[in-house]
Amino acid sequence: MSAIHPATAAPATARDALLCRVEDRLRDLLATEASRWSAVDPRAAVPVEAVAALVGAGGKRLRPAFCLNGFLAASGDPAREPVAVDAAAALEVLHAFALLHDDVLDDSPLRRGEPTAHERHAAAHRAAGWAGEPRRYGEGVAALAGDLAHIYADRLVSELSPAAREIWHELRIEIMVGQYLDIRVAAERIADPELSRWIAVCKSGRYSVHRPLTLGAAIADRLDLAAAFERYGAALGEAFQLRDDMIDAFGDSAVSGKPTGLDFAQQKMTLLVALAMPRDERISRLLAGQSAGGATLAQIITDLDVQGEVERRIDHLVQQAQAAIAEVPIDPAWRDELARFAVQVAYRQK
Amino acid sequence: MSAIHPATAAPATARDALLCRVEDRLRDLLATEASRWSAVDPRAAVPVEAVAALVGAGGKRLRPAFCLNGFLAASGDPAREPVAVDAAAALEVLHAFALLHDDVLDDSPLRRGEPTAHERHAAAHRAAGWAGEPRRYGEGVAALAGDLAHIYADRLVSELSPAAREIWHELRIEIMVGQYLDIRVAAERIADPELSRWIAVCKSGRYSVHRPLTLGAAIADRLDLAAAFERYGAALGEAFQLRDDMIDAFGDSAVSGKPTGLDFAQQKMTLLVALAMPRDERISRLLAGQSAGGATLAQIITDLDVQGEVERRIDHLVQQAQAAIAEVPIDPAWRDELARFAVQVAYRQK
Repeated sequence: MSAIHPATAAPATARDALLCRVEDRLRDLLATEASRWSAVDPRAAVPVEAVAALVGAGGKRLRPAFCLNGFLAASGDPAREPVAVDAAAALEVLHAFALLHDDVLDDSPLRRGEPTAHERHAAAHRAAGWAGEPRRYGEGVAALAGDLAHIYADRLVSELSPAAREIWHELRIEIMVGQYLDIRVAAERIADPELSRWIAVCKSGRYSVHRPLTLGAAIADRLDLAAAFERYGAALGEAFQLRDDMIDAFGDSAVSGKPTGLDFAQQKMTLLVALAMPRDERISRLLAGQSAGGATLAQIITDLDVQGEVERRIDHLVQQAQAAIAEVPIDPAWRDELARFAVQVAYRQK
Repeated sequence: MSAIHPATAAPATARDALLCRVEDRLRDLLATEASRWSAVDPRAAVPVEAVAALVGAGGKRLRPAFCLNGFLAASGDPAREPVAVDAAAALEVLHAFALLHDDVLDDSPLRRGEPTAHERHAAAHRAAGWAGEPRRYGEGVAALAGDLAHIYADRLVSELSPAAREIWHELRIEIMVGQYLDIRVAAERIADPELSRWIAVCKSGRYSVHRPLTLGAAIADRLDLAAAFERYGAALGEAFQLRDDMIDAFGDSAVSGKPTGLDFAQQKMTLLVALAMPRDERISRLLAGQSAGGATLAQIITDLDVQGEVERRIDHLVQQAQAAIAEVPIDPAWRDELARFAVQVAYRQK
């Protein structure tokens, strides 16, 4: 049976074919909703269009890819492909929801190379001279658009089995708790590397790699793979987040589509900063809100030249991820693809 | 079979018994989540506690009641009661989600007699002298707590049939679109009674009455009742919203637990204001942001003494709702209960 399964032919090709179906699904869903609500009143489609603008602005489609990797690596029954495609699409719309709300929490101006939704709509309010406060209106549009994306994501996973659905719920709950701890730790200026590592693992690692991969395997009814996929996801998720921190700290905003240095400016205790902390006691002073003789977090980290250390840590995590699936009972071609994909994710430029 | 069904014995008793199970379900769910996350870090439970505080602060439990009315009136199989109870609980947690986000949109200070979540957490941030802006933190906590409530609500409806699930999705989408139009119309100062009526029907009437009632009937596999329940819900939903407007305009904040006069202060085009508009051209001037010779919306509406007209409209809508179910093929005792419940909802004090 697995002989006729596309996954045995060319893993990356099989996944990319399904990823194209994910794009079609997303485009059709949002276009249908936009026209349905425009028919009531042209204004009614604005929150749908805010979701469509963000989803259409690109993004790495990393979570859909991991979900489909999990499904195909587990030799999921081709008859279940529509469920896997919908779940992958759901993960991308859910990501749009998380970004729309997170960009308000961080007051981030830029996303995927465009002004963030709350910025754009506050500016439109200001330009039109509407009543009320532009900020409240702009952030309100982003909140409602995010909520709408959240609902569309849910609607896309209506066909999940109870076991797969539990993964979906847990994935979402972890984002919210992680997001809250993120703003709380920043507000309280808590310089606790262990807590910050847990937050990064919870809201980024599991959310981006481990849960989507396991969701795909669950749709293929292969929960026996969950343990190996969790080890792969935990290691690769941390590497993913370390790379994210590096891109935020030293990346090219024109390539990443996000502002550079935002984490430093907000004195966030990222994994990158946690790694650097033991090397210079001024870091904990800065994170605790005290002065460091005029030096900024960005300067200190740059002077410390931790990049080399971070890259070695990423190398190590990628090897861990690859080792976790070296023996997993799946098509060998898929073991190779998951190992290759780990490299692609850990060493990405954006 | 219907002879042994509790619904034939005492409709209100049967519903209230299930409403008690809804309360237990809500309390257990939120307590379990709070202790699960406290175990990670005491701070991690804060968004769960924000949801529990709002749900525990009371509220009319109107949407759960309509859902259970729909299920019991449709002689739902007792074996399906757990699904109906969970759906009713889901509607209440979903309402908590909507209120948490809506109170930020309106910057409302008071809810269910307590300071709103965003106010409370902004104040805590200020009092602790934490880093960053208290407003952004407080509104962030309310946003994340609302998102968490949204997820819990969705987890409670995991057992719905596809038809019932579609009602659930549509109900949620309508709230978001209605909320957006609400802030947009206020921002643009659009004085269009028809659009405002549509918004009120969409975000309040259907959400509070029609959809929960039909959801209950769908869980009982009685979609044949949908048309009659929609007529009942459309009329009663408008009466419900008119009463809401009256309570906001002229109610006692100590009884309602909400600020009085907030709609007037924000110059919202409510159903109440829409009814009064033809009677005094200063109203449309005020809503359009022009002056009305120093008179405020509250003064004009009070001087017009529209209360009498609104009460007549409510009487008429209650009769419409009762007529809609007079012939519906359900247990006569439940026809009487739905008629009685319409009166209770339309003439409530809070």
